[in-house]
Amino acid sequence: MIVAGAQNGLFAASLCMLDKGDEVLVLEPMYVTYQATFEAAGAKVVPVPLTAKDFGLDPEVLRRSVTPRTRAIAFATPSNPTGRTLDRAALEEIAAIAVEHDLTVIADEVYEALVLEGQHVSIASLPGMAERCVTIGSLSKSHAMTGWRVGWAIGPKPLIGHMDRLALAMLYGLPGFIQEAAVEAIRRYDEVADAMRAVYRRRRDLLIEHLASCANVEVVKPVAGMFVMLDIRKTGMTSLDFAWSLFQATGVSVLDASAFGVSASGFVRLSFTTSEAQLSEASRRIAAFLHGLEDRQTAPAGTAPAASP
Amino acid sequence: MIVAGAQNGLFAASLCMLDKGDEVLVLEPMYVTYQATFEAAGAKVVPVPLTAKDFGLDPEVLRRSVTPRTRAIAFATPSNPTGRTLDRAALEEIAAIAVEHDLTVIADEVYEALVLEGQHVSIASLPGMAERCVTIGSLSKSHAMTGWRVGWAIGPKPLIGHMDRLALAMLYGLPGFIQEAAVEAIRRYDEVADAMRAVYRRRRDLLIEHLASCANVEVVKPVAGMFVMLDIRKTGMTSLDFAWSLFQATGVSVLDASAFGVSASGFVRLSFTTSEAQLSEASRRIAAFLHGLEDRQTAPAGTAPAASP
Repeated sequence: MIVAGAQNGLFAASLCMLDKGDEVLVLEPMYVTYQATFEAAGAKVVPVPLTAKDFGLDPEVLRRSVTPRTRAIAFATPSNPTGRTLDRAALEEIAAIAVEHDLTVIADEVYEALVLEGQHVSIASLPGMAERCVTIGSLSKSHAMTGWRVGWAIGPKPLIGHMDRLALAMLYGLPGFIQEAAVEAIRRYDEVADAMRAVYRRRRDLLIEHLASCANVEVVKPVAGMFVMLDIRKTGMTSLDFAWSLFQATGVSVLDASAFGVSASGFVRLSFTTSEAQLSEASRRIAAFLHGLEDRQTAPAGTAPAASP
Repeated sequence: MIVAGAQNGLFAASLCMLDKGDEVLVLEPMYVTYQATFEAAGAKVVPVPLTAKDFGLDPEVLRRSVTPRTRAIAFATPSNPTGRTLDRAALEEIAAIAVEHDLTVIADEVYEALVLEGQHVSIASLPGMAERCVTIGSLSKSHAMTGWRVGWAIGPKPLIGHMDRLALAMLYGLPGFIQEAAVEAIRRYDEVADAMRAVYRRRRDLLIEHLASCANVEVVKPVAGMFVMLDIRKTGMTSLDFAWSLFQATGVSVLDASAFGVSASGFVRLSFTTSEAQLSEASRRIAAFLHGLEDRQTAPAGTAPAASP
């Protein structure tokens, strides 16, 4: 079914799949709206931290989170903020747990067109999973059509029938001209998405290259999407302090990633949705700021003030 | 707050104001989506028939429908399908009942710009009512912008704050270009709405004039909107049979109004959203069909088949 953007699809799926008291296991870091979206149905969000390297899944952590009240597993792949994907092996682990405990799966795949390395895998494509998955997509990333609010939800017929009735009461349809634009965008999907990937790959490489010289941060190399996570814990600052100090010192704005969950605490999220020229300048300033921190950290105590707001 | 059309505003109000087990008194005939919209929140819709002349309100019928579980009163003024409005006296009666029983009021005023006789009165404008009303409006009728899905909900700050948080999880905003179009439409509100009213007034008068010669139907003269209700009970047919037979005999499509509630059973709804030329031709065919029915009704028994599909 067509929805008014992926967020609307997640909301409709939440209302139609979840009841009060249900628990949803959500891989964390998670997108900032998930908690409110699932709680809108009365469900309880149970964050499942991605504890393996580079925000990878440890299936045992997921398995241990299942309770008799667990109803669904939700995640985004590729992920905002991590820029990482769940590979086939990880998705097979999730599928096995879903089947074992008769859970549904809510897969947010809005970044599917922006996989920069490897191939996107939909959990719904695994054997037996289509009937227990709802897959959410949109044109916001592939076509930079975020402001058009148009996407889709794909799932088993009874669920989509239910969501479609909800959509009538919730929206009474989407603007026809937006649907027409979406059809045209989908007709040119590969052409547009290929170009988007080429742009984002160049920007990502540029950003990573500039940050490579900074000893006190670690880059989580994004394999997808438009964001890069920077582990700033070695600076001794909180991610909020870091983001704020960087902004005050350099005018470069990054996001304190702790908004995406406790696993992302100590990380900041850099966006590469801006031009290469701006990214180069921003990277230069970030690197200079980081080198300044290094100098202060290695200087004798008391010679420099702590960098905090 | 801005909403994705009046339907979206009603839905958001319903989810934020009503809980499972609550009863909503809805003046009936009612718009076809109301039942699903209020039931989406788990509430029970209690239809309150408009039993006074021309679908007018009998306040005693409304008062008798209040129970300890009643939470809200909902209605549209002007009304689709009736084309009638609730005047100040009727709104004061509703307000008194709402205050007496501490009920909230959901007022659907999407046809407010199309009041063809008299002045539109908002129940929220009555003394003490703003704090217990949510008023829903849109540009769909005043500007024929139905397909743009943009409207508004006006209510007390705490409710709107709650609805705004819901809107974030439900939609994550509306397209910016639609909001810009809405701003421009509102800047030219009077100019556009005046022109709309002039057009609809002419069409209504044309339709009523053509139907005046038909003895076996009664026209409920619309004082607002774009529809006219025709009482066809004297024909001896059900409204469904009438609509179907008319369509088969003449190619003119009217709506069996019983979809709007039991009070509208025996009525068909004619739309005057088409050109005057088409309306003249359609009226001519309807009149001919009705005269044919009269002839058959007055003919000796057995000389003509009953008009039914």
